[in-house]
Amino acid sequence: MSVVNVQLGKNVMIIQPDLVNLYGCEIGDESKVGSFVEIQKNSKIGARCKISSHSFICEGVVIEDEVFVGHGVMFINDREPQATAGGLLQTEKDWTVVPTKVCRGASIGSGAIIMCGITIGEGALIGAGAVVTKDVSEGTIITGVPGRLLRKRT
Amino acid sequence: MSVVNVQLGKNVMIIQPDLVNLYGCEIGDESKVGSFVEIQKNSKIGARCKISSHSFICEGVVIEDEVFVGHGVMFINDREPQATAGGLLQTEKDWTVVPTKVCRGASIGSGAIIMCGITIGEGALIGAGAVVTKDVSEGTIITGVPGRLLRKRT
Amino acid sequence: MSVVNVQLGKNVMIIQPDLVNLYGCEIGDESKVGSFVEIQKNSKIGARCKISSHSFICEGVVIEDEVFVGHGVMFINDREPQATAGGLLQTEKDWTVVPTKVCRGASIGSGAIIMCGITIGEGALIGAGAVVTKDVSEGTIITGVPGRLLRKRT
Repeated sequence: MSVVNVQLGKNVMIIQPDLVNLYGCEIGDESKVGSFVEIQKNSKIGARCKISSHSFICEGVVIEDEVFVGHGVMFINDREPQATAGGLLQTEKDWTVVPTKVCRGASIGSGAIIMCGITIGEGALIGAGAVVTKDVSEGTIITGVPGRLLRKRT
Repeated sequence: MSVVNVQLGKNVMIIQPDLVNLYGCEIGDESKVGSFVEIQKNSKIGARCKISSHSFICEGVVIEDEVFVGHGVMFINDREPQATAGGLLQTEKDWTVVPTKVCRGASIGSGAIIMCGITIGEGALIGAGAVVTKDVSEGTIITGVPGRLLRKRT
Repeated sequence: MSVVNVQLGKNVMIIQPDLVNLYGCEIGDESKVGSFVEIQKNSKIGARCKISSHSFICEGVVIEDEVFVGHGVMFINDREPQATAGGLLQTEKDWTVVPTKVCRGASIGSGAIIMCGITIGEGALIGAGAVVTKDVSEGTIITGVPGRLLRKRT
Protein backbone atom coordinates (compact mmCIF):
# COMPACT_ATOMS: atom_id res chain seq x y z
CA MET A 1 0.00 0.00 0.00
CA SER A 2 1.45 3.26 -1.02
CA VAL A 3 -1.21 5.92 -0.60
CA VAL A 4 0.42 8.46 1.68
CA ASN A 5 -0.86 11.82 2.73
CA VAL A 6 -3.51 11.96 0.02
CA GLN A 7 -6.57 14.13 0.44
CA LEU A 8 -9.30 11.86 -0.86
CA GLY A 9 -12.83 13.02 -1.67
CA LYS A 10 -15.90 10.87 -1.11
CA ASN A 11 -16.09 7.48 -2.77
CA VAL A 12 -12.77 7.69 -4.54
CA MET A 13 -12.04 4.27 -6.04
CA ILE A 14 -8.44 3.12 -6.01
CA ILE A 15 -8.71 -0.15 -7.88
CA GLN A 16 -5.52 -1.73 -6.55
CA PRO A 17 -4.23 0.20 -3.54
CA ASP A 18 -1.17 -2.07 -3.36
CA LEU A 19 -0.18 -1.24 -6.91
CA VAL A 20 -0.20 2.55 -6.94
CA ASN A 21 2.09 5.27 -5.65
CA LEU A 22 0.06 8.29 -4.57
CA TYR A 23 1.43 10.91 -2.20
CA GLY A 24 0.71 14.44 -1.15
CA CYS A 25 -1.96 14.97 -3.79
CA GLU A 26 -5.67 15.69 -3.81
CA ILE A 27 -8.26 13.50 -5.55
CA GLY A 28 -11.90 14.60 -5.85
CA ASP A 29 -15.17 12.80 -5.18
CA GLU A 30 -15.96 9.59 -7.05
CA SER A 31 -12.79 9.64 -9.12
CA LYS A 32 -11.26 6.31 -10.14
CA VAL A 33 -7.55 5.50 -10.13
CA GLY A 34 -6.23 2.43 -11.95
CA SER A 35 -3.25 0.24 -11.13
CA PHE A 36 0.40 1.22 -11.63
CA VAL A 37 -0.48 4.89 -11.36
CA GLU A 38 1.81 7.43 -9.73
CA ILE A 39 0.43 10.78 -8.62
CA GLN A 40 2.89 13.18 -7.04
CA LYS A 41 2.55 15.73 -4.32
CA ASN A 42 1.15 19.15 -5.17
CA SER A 43 -1.01 17.84 -7.95
CA LYS A 44 -4.77 18.01 -7.88
CA ILE A 45 -7.38 15.84 -9.55
CA GLY A 46 -11.02 16.89 -9.63
CA ALA A 47 -14.23 14.96 -9.10
CA ARG A 48 -15.51 12.15 -11.32
CA CYS A 49 -12.22 11.75 -13.17
CA LYS A 50 -10.81 8.49 -14.47
CA ILE A 51 -7.07 8.05 -14.19
CA SER A 52 -6.27 4.86 -16.04
CA SER A 53 -3.54 2.33 -15.37
CA HIS A 54 0.15 3.07 -15.95
CA SER A 55 -0.27 6.85 -15.94
CA PHE A 56 2.00 9.37 -14.28
CA ILE A 57 0.72 12.69 -12.95
CA CYS A 58 3.42 14.96 -11.63
CA GLU A 59 3.71 17.85 -9.29
CA GLY A 60 2.22 21.00 -10.75
CA VAL A 61 -0.60 19.32 -12.67
CA VAL A 62 -4.16 20.42 -12.04
CA ILE A 63 -6.92 18.29 -13.53
CA GLU A 64 -10.44 19.65 -13.31
CA ASP A 65 -13.63 17.60 -12.92
CA GLU A 66 -14.81 14.88 -15.28
CA VAL A 67 -11.51 14.41 -17.07
CA PHE A 68 -10.52 11.09 -18.62
CA VAL A 69 -6.81 10.21 -18.51
CA GLY A 70 -6.08 7.10 -20.56
CA HIS A 71 -3.52 4.38 -19.92
CA GLY A 72 0.17 5.15 -19.91
CA VAL A 73 -0.27 8.91 -20.12
CA MET A 74 2.80 10.89 -18.97
CA PHE A 75 2.72 14.45 -17.68
CA ILE A 76 5.91 16.51 -17.44
CA ASN A 77 6.88 19.49 -15.29
CA ASP A 78 10.41 20.29 -16.40
CA ARG A 79 11.39 21.35 -19.91
CA GLU A 80 15.02 20.32 -19.67
CA PRO A 81 15.45 17.72 -16.94
CA GLN A 82 18.89 16.87 -15.60
CA ALA A 83 20.03 14.25 -13.14
CA THR A 84 22.61 16.53 -11.57
CA ALA A 85 23.47 20.17 -11.01
CA GLY A 86 27.14 20.96 -10.67
CA GLY A 87 27.98 17.28 -10.34
CA LEU A 88 25.60 16.65 -7.45
CA LEU A 89 22.23 14.96 -7.67
CA GLN A 90 19.60 17.64 -8.26
CA THR A 91 17.34 18.54 -5.40
CA GLU A 92 14.05 20.38 -5.48
CA LYS A 93 15.94 23.64 -5.14
CA ASP A 94 17.51 23.12 -8.53
CA TRP A 95 14.41 23.34 -10.61
CA THR A 96 11.10 25.15 -10.92
CA VAL A 97 7.95 23.14 -11.49
CA VAL A 98 6.23 24.27 -14.69
CA PRO A 99 2.46 23.86 -14.17
CA THR A 100 -0.07 22.27 -16.51
CA LYS A 101 -3.86 22.42 -16.43
CA VAL A 102 -6.43 20.08 -17.92
CA CYS A 103 -9.88 21.64 -18.05
CA ARG A 104 -13.20 20.07 -17.29
CA GLY A 105 -14.45 17.21 -19.42
CA ALA A 106 -11.29 16.78 -21.49
CA SER A 107 -10.14 13.31 -22.53
CA ILE A 108 -6.52 12.29 -22.95
CA GLY A 109 -5.92 9.18 -25.05
CA SER A 110 -3.63 6.36 -23.97
CA GLY A 111 0.09 6.84 -24.35
CA ALA A 112 -0.20 10.59 -24.83
CA ILE A 113 2.59 12.78 -23.47
CA ILE A 114 1.73 16.20 -22.12
CA MET A 115 4.55 18.73 -22.10
CA CYS A 116 4.53 21.30 -19.32
CA GLY A 117 3.35 24.88 -19.19
CA ILE A 118 0.23 24.24 -21.22
CA THR A 119 -3.53 24.26 -20.80
CA ILE A 120 -5.78 21.65 -22.36
CA GLY A 121 -9.15 23.28 -22.92
CA GLU A 122 -12.54 22.13 -21.76
CA GLY A 123 -13.85 19.07 -23.55
CA ALA A 124 -10.76 18.68 -25.73
CA LEU A 125 -9.73 15.23 -26.93
CA ILE A 126 -6.06 14.29 -27.13
CA GLY A 127 -5.51 11.37 -29.49
CA ALA A 128 -3.72 8.25 -28.31
CA GLY A 129 0.04 8.61 -28.59
CA ALA A 130 0.00 12.37 -29.24
CA VAL A 131 2.80 14.52 -27.85
CA VAL A 132 1.11 17.76 -26.80
CA THR A 133 3.55 20.68 -26.89
CA LYS A 134 1.28 23.72 -26.72
CA ASP A 135 -2.10 24.92 -25.53
CA VAL A 136 -5.13 23.03 -26.79
CA SER A 137 -8.35 24.96 -27.52
CA GLU A 138 -11.54 23.79 -25.92
CA GLY A 139 -13.54 21.21 -27.82
CA THR A 140 -10.79 20.38 -30.30
CA ILE A 141 -9.13 17.09 -31.22
CA ILE A 142 -5.33 16.97 -31.27
CA THR A 143 -3.33 14.06 -32.71
CA GLY A 144 0.21 13.20 -33.75
CA VAL A 145 3.80 14.00 -32.81
CA PRO A 146 3.99 16.87 -32.21
CA GLY A 147 0.27 17.23 -31.57
CA ARG A 148 -1.66 19.15 -34.23
CA LEU A 149 -5.28 20.14 -34.62
CA LEU A 150 -7.23 17.40 -36.35
CA ARG A 151 -10.66 19.05 -36.14
CA LYS A 152 -13.28 20.44 -33.80
CA ARG A 153 -14.96 17.85 -31.66
CA THR A 154 -18.62 17.37 -32.51
CA MET B 1 -0.98 -10.76 -5.65
CA SER B 2 -3.60 -9.64 -8.03
CA VAL B 3 -4.42 -12.53 -10.31
CA VAL B 4 -8.16 -12.96 -9.94
CA ASN B 5 -10.47 -15.20 -11.83
CA VAL B 6 -7.97 -15.87 -14.61
CA GLN B 7 -8.23 -19.01 -16.72
CA LEU B 8 -4.62 -20.07 -16.96
CA GLY B 9 -3.32 -22.69 -19.40
CA LYS B 10 -0.53 -25.10 -18.54
CA ASN B 11 2.82 -23.70 -17.48
CA VAL B 12 1.89 -20.06 -17.80
CA MET B 13 4.72 -18.00 -16.34
CA ILE B 14 3.77 -14.88 -14.43
CA ILE B 15 7.16 -13.46 -13.62
CA GLN B 16 6.10 -11.30 -10.66
CA PRO B 17 2.62 -12.30 -9.49
CA ASP B 18 2.67 -9.49 -6.91
CA LEU B 19 3.27 -6.86 -9.56
CA VAL B 20 0.55 -7.59 -12.11
CA ASN B 21 -3.16 -6.94 -12.31
CA LEU B 22 -4.87 -9.76 -14.21
CA TYR B 23 -8.57 -10.43 -13.89
CA GLY B 24 -11.29 -12.29 -15.73
CA CYS B 25 -9.09 -13.07 -18.72
CA GLU B 26 -7.76 -16.21 -20.37
CA ILE B 27 -4.07 -16.93 -20.92
CA GLY B 28 -2.93 -19.92 -22.99
CA ASP B 29 -0.32 -22.61 -22.37
CA GLU B 30 3.29 -21.62 -21.76
CA SER B 31 2.68 -17.91 -22.22
CA LYS B 32 4.83 -15.48 -20.23
CA VAL B 33 3.57 -12.33 -18.54
CA GLY B 34 6.01 -9.66 -17.32
CA SER B 35 5.75 -7.30 -14.38
CA PHE B 36 3.48 -4.24 -14.22
CA VAL B 37 1.11 -5.80 -16.75
CA GLU B 38 -2.64 -5.31 -16.59
CA ILE B 39 -4.92 -7.67 -18.49
CA GLN B 40 -8.63 -7.00 -18.23
CA LYS B 41 -11.63 -9.26 -18.19
CA ASN B 42 -12.99 -10.58 -21.45
CA SER B 43 -9.65 -10.54 -23.15
CA LYS B 44 -7.95 -13.67 -24.41
CA ILE B 45 -4.29 -14.46 -24.92
CA GLY B 46 -3.20 -17.55 -26.82
CA ALA B 47 -0.48 -20.09 -26.19
CA ARG B 48 3.26 -19.37 -26.24
CA CYS B 49 2.81 -15.60 -26.20
CA LYS B 50 5.10 -13.13 -24.48
CA ILE B 51 3.43 -10.17 -22.83
CA SER B 52 6.24 -7.88 -21.73
CA SER B 53 6.41 -5.56 -18.75
CA HIS B 54 4.33 -2.39 -18.47
CA SER B 55 1.78 -3.45 -21.10
CA PHE B 56 -1.97 -3.02 -20.92
CA ILE B 57 -4.38 -5.40 -22.61
CA CYS B 58 -7.99 -4.38 -22.38
CA GLU B 59 -11.34 -5.98 -22.61
CA GLY B 60 -12.19 -6.98 -26.15
CA VAL B 61 -8.66 -7.87 -27.23
CA VAL B 62 -8.00 -11.32 -28.64
CA ILE B 63 -4.38 -12.33 -29.11
CA GLU B 64 -3.73 -15.56 -30.97
CA ASP B 65 -0.87 -17.99 -30.34
CA GLU B 66 2.83 -17.12 -30.52
CA VAL B 67 2.40 -13.36 -30.40
CA PHE B 68 5.06 -11.08 -28.94
CA VAL B 69 3.82 -7.97 -27.13
CA GLY B 70 6.69 -5.64 -26.23
CA HIS B 71 7.09 -3.42 -23.20
CA GLY B 72 4.71 -0.57 -22.54
CA VAL B 73 2.28 -1.53 -25.30
CA MET B 74 -1.20 -0.04 -24.88
CA PHE B 75 -4.37 -1.49 -26.37
CA ILE B 76 -7.55 0.58 -26.59
CA ASN B 77 -11.23 -0.39 -26.79
CA ASP B 78 -13.00 2.94 -26.97
CA ARG B 79 -12.57 5.50 -29.75
CA GLU B 80 -13.74 8.50 -27.78
CA PRO B 81 -13.39 7.82 -24.07
CA GLN B 82 -15.11 10.02 -21.52
CA ALA B 83 -14.96 10.08 -17.76
CA THR B 84 -18.64 10.87 -17.38
CA ALA B 85 -21.97 10.58 -19.16
CA GLY B 86 -24.52 13.23 -18.30
CA GLY B 87 -22.41 14.42 -15.40
CA LEU B 88 -22.18 11.00 -13.74
CA LEU B 89 -19.19 8.70 -13.82
CA GLN B 90 -19.52 6.39 -16.82
CA THR B 91 -20.43 2.80 -16.15
CA GLU B 92 -20.12 -0.19 -18.46
CA LYS B 93 -23.59 0.57 -19.80
CA ASP B 94 -22.36 3.82 -21.27
CA TRP B 95 -19.98 2.40 -23.81
CA THR B 96 -19.51 -0.44 -26.24
CA VAL B 97 -16.22 -2.29 -26.28
CA VAL B 98 -14.66 -2.14 -29.74
CA PRO B 99 -12.75 -5.41 -30.27
CA THR B 100 -9.22 -5.88 -31.62
CA LYS B 101 -7.51 -9.01 -32.86
CA VAL B 102 -3.82 -9.83 -33.13
CA CYS B 103 -3.20 -12.84 -35.34
CA ARG B 104 -0.77 -15.68 -34.82
CA GLY B 105 2.93 -14.97 -34.76
CA ALA B 106 2.69 -11.18 -34.90
CA SER B 107 5.15 -9.02 -32.94
CA ILE B 108 4.29 -5.66 -31.43
CA GLY B 109 7.24 -3.43 -30.61
CA SER B 110 7.66 -1.63 -27.29
CA GLY B 111 5.65 1.50 -26.71
CA ALA B 112 3.29 0.82 -29.61
CA ILE B 113 -0.32 1.93 -29.26
CA ILE B 114 -3.02 -0.16 -30.87
CA MET B 115 -6.27 1.65 -31.65
CA CYS B 116 -9.45 -0.41 -31.47
CA GLY B 117 -11.53 -2.10 -34.10
CA ILE B 118 -8.54 -3.38 -36.04
CA THR B 119 -6.91 -6.67 -36.95
CA ILE B 120 -3.16 -7.14 -36.98
CA GLY B 121 -2.41 -9.87 -39.52
CA GLU B 122 -0.45 -13.06 -39.02
CA GLY B 123 3.26 -12.54 -38.62
CA ALA B 124 3.07 -8.75 -38.89
CA LEU B 125 5.65 -6.61 -37.09
CA ILE B 126 4.62 -3.35 -35.46
CA GLY B 127 7.58 -1.03 -34.94
CA ALA B 128 8.40 0.34 -31.53
CA GLY B 129 6.42 3.48 -30.78
CA ALA B 130 4.03 3.09 -33.72
CA VAL B 131 0.42 4.19 -33.32
CA VAL B 132 -1.62 1.64 -35.27
CA THR B 133 -4.88 3.12 -36.51
CA LYS B 134 -6.05 0.62 -39.12
CA ASP B 135 -5.83 -3.01 -40.16
CA VAL B 136 -2.36 -4.42 -40.71
CA SER B 137 -1.82 -6.97 -43.50
CA GLU B 138 -0.16 -10.23 -42.63
CA GLY B 139 3.60 -10.32 -42.84
CA THR B 140 4.05 -6.57 -43.13
CA ILE B 141 6.05 -4.09 -41.06
CA ILE B 142 4.28 -0.96 -39.82
CA THR B 143 6.10 2.01 -38.24
CA GLY B 144 5.46 5.62 -37.27
CA VAL B 145 2.67 7.85 -36.04
CA PRO B 146 0.21 7.14 -37.48
CA GLY B 147 1.47 3.69 -38.43
CA ARG B 148 2.31 3.26 -42.13
CA LEU B 149 3.56 0.35 -44.18
CA LEU B 150 7.34 0.23 -44.17
CA ARG B 151 7.74 -2.98 -46.17
CA LYS B 152 6.91 -6.65 -46.32
CA ARG B 153 8.59 -8.73 -43.68
CA THR B 154 11.17 -11.13 -45.08
CA MET C 1 10.00 -6.50 -2.64
CA SER C 2 11.63 -7.47 -5.83
CA VAL C 3 15.21 -6.31 -5.73
CA VAL C 4 17.19 -9.47 -6.36
CA ASN C 5 20.85 -9.87 -6.90
CA VAL C 6 21.44 -6.18 -7.56
CA GLN C 7 24.85 -4.65 -7.02
CA LEU C 8 23.96 -1.39 -5.34
CA GLY C 9 26.39 1.51 -4.84
CA LYS C 10 26.34 3.75 -1.80
CA ASN C 11 23.17 5.64 -0.95
CA VAL C 12 21.13 4.35 -3.86
CA MET C 13 17.53 5.46 -3.35
CA ILE C 14 14.84 3.04 -4.43
CA ILE C 15 11.73 5.08 -3.74
CA GLN C 16 9.28 2.18 -3.50
CA PRO C 17 11.16 -1.11 -3.13
CA ASP C 18 7.87 -3.02 -3.22
CA LEU C 19 6.93 -1.55 -6.57
CA VAL C 20 10.01 -2.21 -8.68
CA ASN C 21 11.49 -5.23 -10.40
CA LEU C 22 15.28 -5.03 -10.36
CA TYR C 23 17.45 -8.08 -10.85
CA GLY C 24 21.01 -8.92 -11.73
CA CYS C 25 21.94 -5.34 -12.56
CA GLU C 26 24.35 -2.77 -11.20
CA ILE C 27 23.31 0.68 -9.94
CA GLY C 28 25.90 3.30 -9.00
CA ASP C 29 26.27 5.56 -5.99
CA GLU C 30 23.47 7.98 -5.10
CA SER C 31 21.29 7.04 -8.07
CA LYS C 32 17.52 7.23 -7.64
CA VAL C 33 15.04 4.69 -8.96
CA GLY C 34 11.33 5.50 -9.14
CA SER C 35 8.33 3.21 -8.79
CA PHE C 36 7.16 0.71 -11.41
CA VAL C 37 10.66 0.48 -12.85
CA GLU C 38 12.10 -2.73 -14.24
CA ILE C 39 15.85 -3.09 -14.68
CA GLN C 40 17.08 -6.38 -16.09
CA LYS C 41 20.16 -8.40 -15.50
CA ASN C 42 23.34 -7.46 -17.29
CA SER C 43 22.50 -3.81 -17.44
CA LYS C 44 24.52 -1.16 -15.69
CA ILE C 45 23.54 2.24 -14.38
CA GLY C 46 26.14 4.76 -13.28
CA ALA C 47 26.35 7.08 -10.31
CA ARG C 48 24.00 10.01 -9.65
CA CYS C 49 21.47 8.92 -12.26
CA LYS C 50 17.72 9.37 -12.00
CA ILE C 51 15.60 6.55 -13.37
CA SER C 52 12.02 7.79 -13.25
CA SER C 53 8.84 5.84 -12.69
CA HIS C 54 7.44 3.39 -15.27
CA SER C 55 10.73 3.00 -17.15
CA PHE C 56 12.17 -0.22 -18.49
CA ILE C 57 15.90 -0.80 -18.82
CA CYS C 58 16.82 -4.04 -20.47
CA GLU C 59 19.76 -6.34 -20.61
CA GLY C 60 22.59 -4.88 -22.63
CA VAL C 61 22.02 -1.25 -21.67
CA VAL C 62 24.88 0.71 -20.14
CA ILE C 63 24.04 4.09 -18.66
CA GLU C 64 26.95 6.26 -17.59
CA ASP C 65 27.00 8.68 -14.65
CA GLU C 66 24.63 11.62 -14.18
CA VAL C 67 22.04 10.50 -16.73
CA PHE C 68 18.39 11.42 -16.42
CA VAL C 69 15.88 8.83 -17.63
CA GLY C 70 12.34 10.23 -17.65
CA HIS C 71 9.07 8.45 -16.93
CA GLY C 72 7.87 5.63 -19.12
CA VAL C 73 11.09 5.37 -21.13
CA MET C 74 11.53 2.04 -22.92
CA PHE C 75 14.86 0.56 -23.96
CA ILE C 76 15.03 -2.29 -26.48
CA ASN C 77 17.63 -4.98 -27.12
CA ASP C 78 16.19 -6.94 -30.01
CA ARG C 79 15.46 -5.53 -33.44
CA GLU C 80 12.92 -8.12 -34.46
CA PRO C 81 11.45 -9.76 -31.37
CA GLN C 82 9.49 -12.99 -31.63
CA ALA C 83 7.57 -14.96 -29.07
CA THR C 84 8.64 -18.30 -30.48
CA ALA C 85 11.36 -19.96 -32.51
CA GLY C 86 10.29 -23.01 -34.49
CA GLY C 87 6.98 -23.13 -32.64
CA LEU C 88 8.55 -23.21 -29.17
CA LEU C 89 8.78 -20.30 -26.76
CA GLN C 90 12.06 -18.49 -27.38
CA THR C 91 14.79 -18.92 -24.85
CA GLU C 92 17.89 -16.83 -24.33
CA LYS C 93 19.72 -19.04 -26.81
CA ASP C 94 17.45 -17.85 -29.60
CA TRP C 95 18.52 -14.24 -29.65
CA THR C 96 21.52 -11.99 -29.30
CA VAL C 97 21.26 -8.96 -27.08
CA VAL C 98 22.03 -5.78 -29.06
CA PRO C 99 23.71 -3.33 -26.66
CA THR C 100 22.95 0.36 -26.16
CA LYS C 101 24.98 3.02 -24.39
CA VAL C 102 23.88 6.31 -22.88
CA CYS C 103 26.82 8.61 -22.19
CA ARG C 104 27.41 10.82 -19.21
CA GLY C 105 25.05 13.65 -18.47
CA ALA C 106 22.48 12.82 -21.14
CA SER C 107 18.77 13.33 -20.48
CA ILE C 108 16.02 11.16 -21.94
CA GLY C 109 12.55 12.69 -21.93
CA SER C 110 9.48 10.85 -20.74
CA GLY C 111 7.91 8.32 -23.03
CA ALA C 112 10.95 8.14 -25.31
CA ILE C 113 11.76 4.81 -26.93
CA ILE C 114 15.38 3.90 -27.49
CA MET C 115 16.05 1.36 -30.24
CA CYS C 116 19.02 -0.95 -29.75
CA GLY C 117 22.55 -0.85 -31.07
CA ILE C 118 22.93 2.89 -30.60
CA THR C 119 24.93 5.33 -28.54
CA ILE C 120 23.45 8.48 -27.08
CA GLY C 121 26.26 11.01 -26.76
CA GLU C 122 27.36 12.91 -23.70
CA GLY C 123 24.97 15.61 -22.60
CA ALA C 124 22.44 14.89 -25.35
CA LEU C 125 18.76 15.59 -24.74
CA ILE C 126 16.11 13.24 -26.12
CA GLY C 127 12.74 14.93 -26.36
CA ALA C 128 9.69 13.44 -24.70
CA GLY C 129 8.04 10.83 -26.89
CA ALA C 130 10.91 10.59 -29.38
CA VAL C 131 11.71 7.24 -30.97
CA VAL C 132 15.50 7.15 -31.24
CA THR C 133 16.63 4.91 -34.08
CA LYS C 134 20.27 5.88 -34.57
CA ASP C 135 23.29 7.31 -32.80
CA VAL C 136 22.87 10.69 -31.18
CA SER C 137 25.79 13.15 -31.20
CA GLU C 138 26.91 14.63 -27.93
CA GLY C 139 25.22 17.82 -26.84
CA THR C 140 22.40 17.64 -29.38
CA ILE C 141 18.63 17.64 -28.99
CA ILE C 142 16.64 14.94 -30.77
CA THR C 143 12.84 14.98 -31.10
CA GLY C 144 10.07 13.24 -33.01
CA VAL C 145 9.25 9.88 -34.53
CA PRO C 146 11.66 8.82 -35.81
CA GLY C 147 14.00 11.02 -33.79
CA ARG C 148 15.67 13.83 -35.75
CA LEU C 149 18.15 16.54 -34.83
CA LEU C 150 16.35 19.61 -33.55
CA ARG C 151 19.45 21.65 -32.68
CA LYS C 152 22.59 21.74 -30.60
CA ARG C 153 22.02 22.03 -26.90
CA THR C 154 23.13 25.33 -25.47
